[in-house]
Amino acid sequence: MTLLSGEPHVITVGADLLGEALDAQAVPRTAVDWRPPLPGTSAALARVLADPRRAAANERAVGRLTSARPQLVGVRPAGEVLGLAPGTFLHAGPPITWERASGPMRGALIGAMLFEGLASDPADAADRLAAGRATLEPCHHHRTVGPMAGVVSPSMWMFEVDDAEHGGTAYCSLNEGLGKVLRYGAYGPEVLARLRWMGEVLGPALAAALRLTGPLDLRALIAQALQMGDELHNRNRAATSLLVRELAPAVVDAAPAHAAEVLRFVNGNDHFFLNPAMAAGKVSTDAARNIPGSSLVVAMARNGTDFGVQVSGLGDRWFTGPAGVPDGLYLGAYGPADANPDIGDSTITETSGLGGFAMAAAPAIVRFVGGEVSDAITATRSMYEITLAEHPAYQIPGLGFRGTPVGIDVTLVARTGVLPVVNTGIAGRVAGTGQVGAGLVSPPAEAFVAALNALAD
Amino acid sequence: MTLLSGEPHVITVGADLLGEALDAQAVPRTAVDWRPPLPGTSAALARVLADPRRAAANERAVGRLTSARPQLVGVRPAGEVLGLAPGTFLHAGPPITWERASGPMRGALIGAMLFEGLASDPADAADRLAAGRATLEPCHHHRTVGPMAGVVSPSMWMFEVDDAEHGGTAYCSLNEGLGKVLRYGAYGPEVLARLRWMGEVLGPALAAALRLTGPLDLRALIAQALQMGDELHNRNRAATSLLVRELAPAVVDAAPAHAAEVLRFVNGNDHFFLNPAMAAGKVSTDAARNIPGSSLVVAMARNGTDFGVQVSGLGDRWFTGPAGVPDGLYLGAYGPADANPDIGDSTITETSGLGGFAMAAAPAIVRFVGGEVSDAITATRSMYEITLAEHPAYQIPGLGFRGTPVGIDVTLVARTGVLPVVNTGIAGRVAGTGQVGAGLVSPPAEAFVAALNALAD
Repeated sequence: MTLLSGEPHVITVGADLLGEALDAQAVPRTAVDWRPPLPGTSAALARVLADPRRAAANERAVGRLTSARPQLVGVRPAGEVLGLAPGTFLHAGPPITWERASGPMRGALIGAMLFEGLASDPADAADRLAAGRATLEPCHHHRTVGPMAGVVSPSMWMFEVDDAEHGGTAYCSLNEGLGKVLRYGAYGPEVLARLRWMGEVLGPALAAALRLTGPLDLRALIAQALQMGDELHNRNRAATSLLVRELAPAVVDAAPAHAAEVLRFVNGNDHFFLNPAMAAGKVSTDAARNIPGSSLVVAMARNGTDFGVQVSGLGDRWFTGPAGVPDGLYLGAYGPADANPDIGDSTITETSGLGGFAMAAAPAIVRFVGGEVSDAITATRSMYEITLAEHPAYQIPGLGFRGTPVGIDVTLVARTGVLPVVNTGIAGRVAGTGQVGAGLVSPPAEAFVAALNALAD
Repeated sequence: MTLLSGEPHVITVGADLLGEALDAQAVPRTAVDWRPPLPGTSAALARVLADPRRAAANERAVGRLTSARPQLVGVRPAGEVLGLAPGTFLHAGPPITWERASGPMRGALIGAMLFEGLASDPADAADRLAAGRATLEPCHHHRTVGPMAGVVSPSMWMFEVDDAEHGGTAYCSLNEGLGKVLRYGAYGPEVLARLRWMGEVLGPALAAALRLTGPLDLRALIAQALQMGDELHNRNRAATSLLVRELAPAVVDAAPAHAAEVLRFVNGNDHFFLNPAMAAGKVSTDAARNIPGSSLVVAMARNGTDFGVQVSGLGDRWFTGPAGVPDGLYLGAYGPADANPDIGDSTITETSGLGGFAMAAAPAIVRFVGGEVSDAITATRSMYEITLAEHPAYQIPGLGFRGTPVGIDVTLVARTGVLPVVNTGIAGRVAGTGQVGAGLVSPPAEAFVAALNALAD
């Protein structure tokens, strides 16, 4: 038998053009779905994939991520729980300096300086920040996450979320609502007045209510919200509603004098639950950190200038690339020219199997971030290619209750070239503009390439 | 040219067997999707379809149904708003006598007699009812709908829903929650105590809150809930949550002493919104009544013995057939032998384009009523075959924001043999058992055939 004497058995790989020509000639073929890996990753991939620790390490890491049981246990001041010294500010994303900070990040830092009484006016605050009179540290270095600029100062109140399975704790600020807010870089008097009210009324009322209800099971609440059209990043309407239902009677009992204003404030903001969802994601991914040999992504975060990832087997090192500008729908007269590059720790939702990864659960979100319903389903489906597991509790009814794709593996990203789908709010590039839109954004591939190369080393 | 001299052009109709044989022989064919009409309807169909008024009448009727703007305007006692005389009781479905009433209907009537102080104990109540000492009238004859037994007595409090577009008003009782409740035929002391609390605390608190908020736009709230996985018959979790969010601050302001217990009661029952949804359906379908020549169904309702329909062009006449037993999932150790035949006015949701007709919006409901997610989508898709319109406000994200199928046309039911899909709770057949399950049920075809024949006459 030689190659040419029998009927050929054809395997086709890569671009479909030649394969389709065989189809047209009725030649049977076996098509293999294959794409070249990301450029410059072949050698590192070979080394990392050959690491004998890797399979077990990833299984352990993603098992800890998906078995975490986040529960909301309290609401407390950042200064009390994070031990922040005056003049220290946390911010979203990987480390950044004032010089490299974008408009909304600078605005939020100015606002926090004013809120803490460390500057007399915005110009004074900017001068002091430029002179290095404040210490800037990533939220992620302090078991914390923050949406958009993510600036946390000692006087701000935080959601406290415990992991009932593995014992960790994580924090996220309280959501300020829409419009002119610190997280989008606004620092006017109304922003500071609202933050003061949140510290004096909202935080203590929620804290007192939670003492009455006991810990709130966020894993169950998120699972329900996914069955109600939320993806927990840009759509939190169901989760916010469920949270209000759970807490409202206790708010009345615990803080009768302020119950109506507290409930009105929370009711006025469909994104109120984003922050507990982020703390839940943080405490879950933290449970998967520091497992030697694991290529699991445990953080994706943006500071408005850089997009950074952290990987379980690589400790607290950041691997970064330039933050992109989301592609989406703009509010009012705003357009792409008004958009700041991608910003915020809210990509912890995608890192924990929610947000862009769960868009198939939230078809209505396409009215907010653009595209068709089929795009939302395609986005989720494609994320199964780069994740290690399907979440056992976070299920998508429309996909026959399949678990959300969870646990990004940098080797799978490098092998397939498929980048995580992130859906996000878009901040105005001028400090204080607020939200100008919402859309989808791809992280820079180089962050994942750099992480892979570090794993290979 | 004769029939046999050229290439044949084949049109296939009906059963696919012969058509598939042609496919196997590579003979091109045009398949026509056709089924014979319901048995015994051909002559009536021909007459009704030839009625020159019909097209315009149906367009007007379904236009009024879909343009209705139901809004929750108040909560008031039935005696005050319905002018019920003592000893008159409303019930679900078409007219029924005590003799023909099923277990849960009898239990609810006994409970209502006790609640109104018209009998000394259950046996006394049953004797008086059997002796004709009470007047029984369908809810539907009094601009009212009630879930399950649907029994309304003067001292019960009602949701009041206005149609801001056409000016109608409809009523539905307040939902009692789960477990032992009057609507499932329970009449023990705890049932009566709860009804008294609802009249003394819940009703007045909700009424006072609504006076503060002003009318609540139910059309908008239902449209949102459909984007959050409700279909508004067996799944009302999102709508209930949205209602709580809207009303909670006003409940605190209007009834501070009772706010916590009221919010706890509503929060404890994911079906609380079913009743406002039913009143919204009733006021919308009532707007489409009494249009001469229209074959639009304006009510489907069951009393636990008979299933009845009413048609726009036929006034208040009922066309009935025996109520079926739903096919679904049973709670705990219950099974089909424990099930009462189909009961309740809640099919007003299907009549107004919700419930079984909107199941594609609520894939998670299959965990409650049985089947696969694909069944839920198929159910909604098949309802487009027997309806006159797609609802302009009630949209299904998973179907690319297509409007729900709305406006059942008896001629389309007869032509296609496709019966409305109803999803429903299943009552225990023994009075007071409560809910034993939930599932899908088909109405009896003869009710639609009878309505068609009446139209032909």
